[in-house]
Amino acid sequence: MDNKLMLMIPGPTPVPEAALLALAKHPIGHRSGEFSSMMGEVTENLKWLHQTTSDVLMLNVSGTGAVEAGIINFLSPGDRILVGSNGKFGERWVEVGQAFGLNVEAVTSEWGQPLDPAQFAAKLQADTNKEIKAVIITHSETSTGVINDLEAINRHVKEHGEALIIVDAVTSLGAYNVPVDAWGLDVVASGSQKGYMIPPGLGFVSVSPKAWEAYKTAKLPKYYLDLGKYRKATAKNTTPFTPPVNLMVALHTTLGMMKKEGLESIFTRHQRQKNATRAAMKALNLSLFAGDECASPAITAVATPGIETDKIRSLMKKQFDIALAGGQDHLSNKIFRIGHLGFVSDRDILSCIASLEVVLPQVGHDNFTPGTGIAAAAKVFGQ
Amino acid sequence: MDNKLMLMIPGPTPVPEAALLALAKHPIGHRSGEFSSMMGEVTENLKWLHQTTSDVLMLNVSGTGAVEAGIINFLSPGDRILVGSNGKFGERWVEVGQAFGLNVEAVTSEWGQPLDPAQFAAKLQADTNKEIKAVIITHSETSTGVINDLEAINRHVKEHGEALIIVDAVTSLGAYNVPVDAWGLDVVASGSQKGYMIPPGLGFVSVSPKAWEAYKTAKLPKYYLDLGKYRKATAKNTTPFTPPVNLMVALHTTLGMMKKEGLESIFTRHQRQKNATRAAMKALNLSLFAGDECASPAITAVATPGIETDKIRSLMKKQFDIALAGGQDHLSNKIFRIGHLGFVSDRDILSCIASLEVVLPQVGHDNFTPGTGIAAAAKVFGQ
Repeated sequence: MDNKLMLMIPGPTPVPEAALLALAKHPIGHRSGEFSSMMGEVTENLKWLHQTTSDVLMLNVSGTGAVEAGIINFLSPGDRILVGSNGKFGERWVEVGQAFGLNVEAVTSEWGQPLDPAQFAAKLQADTNKEIKAVIITHSETSTGVINDLEAINRHVKEHGEALIIVDAVTSLGAYNVPVDAWGLDVVASGSQKGYMIPPGLGFVSVSPKAWEAYKTAKLPKYYLDLGKYRKATAKNTTPFTPPVNLMVALHTTLGMMKKEGLESIFTRHQRQKNATRAAMKALNLSLFAGDECASPAITAVATPGIETDKIRSLMKKQFDIALAGGQDHLSNKIFRIGHLGFVSDRDILSCIASLEVVLPQVGHDNFTPGTGIAAAAKVFGQ
Repeated sequence: MDNKLMLMIPGPTPVPEAALLALAKHPIGHRSGEFSSMMGEVTENLKWLHQTTSDVLMLNVSGTGAVEAGIINFLSPGDRILVGSNGKFGERWVEVGQAFGLNVEAVTSEWGQPLDPAQFAAKLQADTNKEIKAVIITHSETSTGVINDLEAINRHVKEHGEALIIVDAVTSLGAYNVPVDAWGLDVVASGSQKGYMIPPGLGFVSVSPKAWEAYKTAKLPKYYLDLGKYRKATAKNTTPFTPPVNLMVALHTTLGMMKKEGLESIFTRHQRQKNATRAAMKALNLSLFAGDECASPAITAVATPGIETDKIRSLMKKQFDIALAGGQDHLSNKIFRIGHLGFVSDRDILSCIASLEVVLPQVGHDNFTPGTGIAAAAKVFGQ
């Protein structure tokens, strides 16, 4: 049976029917009272989701565009920055910094390993001249399924006192606790096709008062990504440029759903699905690419030594219409990734595991007792 | 009656049902074969629409983001550029150039007047050292309803030989003839919520071989807006960053509709609706803000001396649920603008004129014989 696709990739993620129907509404003018009123509610709900009283701005960009905006608005050419790099996205922020002429120092770990807070501590403590202007961290590294210890790294940033903490929260926001004000996160960037439960097309950036101070003297060139323009417009419930109206109407719908579910329930759901997925993969004698202590609540990466993972993905698509993500760059064909992010139900996790139990023996991985994957997940969901 | 909005603004423009339903489809993965195959077709159709064999790239940005990308990819700090400025958008491209440290020379006309090709000729001919690296022209100036003589200005650019011609075609592409290859237009930027007949969220940039040569040595910093990344990915029917999948599926639908209608018919339709609208406004003794010789096929701006246009717009909205655009900046409350761009039928033009005939006397403009607006439009449509 075709045309019954189940997305289990880390983005785009599944979209609830109410949001799909909202997308299909005739667009309204973005300079109308109706739009302003809706935008005011969306902005308030974004602040709730970010647990902040400061600004959360919406841009018509992908997650990468949002993170880039979060970097270039607060820095000047030659500024020294530390960038955590333990996967595809960490590497990307190194590239962005270099493209804009920043003095980038990558703080690396192996792909699949978490960043080491002690490495950041050492560099920040050694910087007595306070030359480090920002520390950029990918919270949940989508390419590997690793969640970095943002809270610990941020403590060292706070001890430094000068540097801003800039966070790629693209696959953590709306899945994991990111208490912007409580932790003092200066800039947090995310994208719509993840925890927000709508299609790709909108990026979000929260900005702290300290970051706005840095903005005043930041000299990297910007116009479309100039967050000052968005701040000024957002204060009047409008946008500096034509916004993706239909996506915002859909976002209005899903933020309402999220508020109804509540932050704690959302985080618990992601945690539970992560636990069920990981328990099942272990029961099926598959290798988890990230350790339990650093496992992302949004993505589980599974290594399959000796098996081309593209074969698994291809069969899962063909036989069950389930889309799984592959590995990126050197991990291509070596891992597959299960997205359990956004509008994913516990039932979806069971479907995915059960389907894997059918597919794995077909690619030669049969050293598991049929049903043990589901049994392991059932133990988590039955609690 | 509420909830039966008719958008007669220059963007967002009305969206056909088939595209709305396409928007409401579950998203698909952007790294899937299905997506690649669709993207290949979209790219081919974009080339058809641009009348080019060179690249047309899609970005997840608004029209402003597309024009900015079209500027910053081909220039270096301090480069001398001429920017045509006779309205809000011309002024915006001056600001973009300044924000990126270019040596910007604005070539201005009054708002409502067209740019003067002779002024460009004089500056380009005087530039014997070939220091002018680009000429930036807003083809259809959305803020005033003026279409600039791009063909004539471009001839002077071609005589200069060195400068690139960079065009904001946001409200002309898909409404007016913009033969990219035949005219040798180096960079042409546009946005989805206009002639493309889908909601806002996608920007388009066509790039000539000459512009790609300039790209090689251009030094303005860029990453998310780096068109080289889009070119490389587009050649493989993929995207450098997560694209707005649902909007692309909708675009696939509307480009199919446009191909079926044909370029000539599309241009004729916009011309006819412009003529009908202008004839009606004259018959109703209203003042047209742009002269017949420079009237945009996409927007008609109407001046109402002595009447606050916001009153007209407010009554049109309240009584007939028709959204008209107001004036921007110093034209606020002094003009209203009728969008006849994209998915607008001749019937919509009649509805709008007939409704205006009801509303105008209510704001004190009654020096016309009822029915004469419709009679004037009927003469155009009856031809």
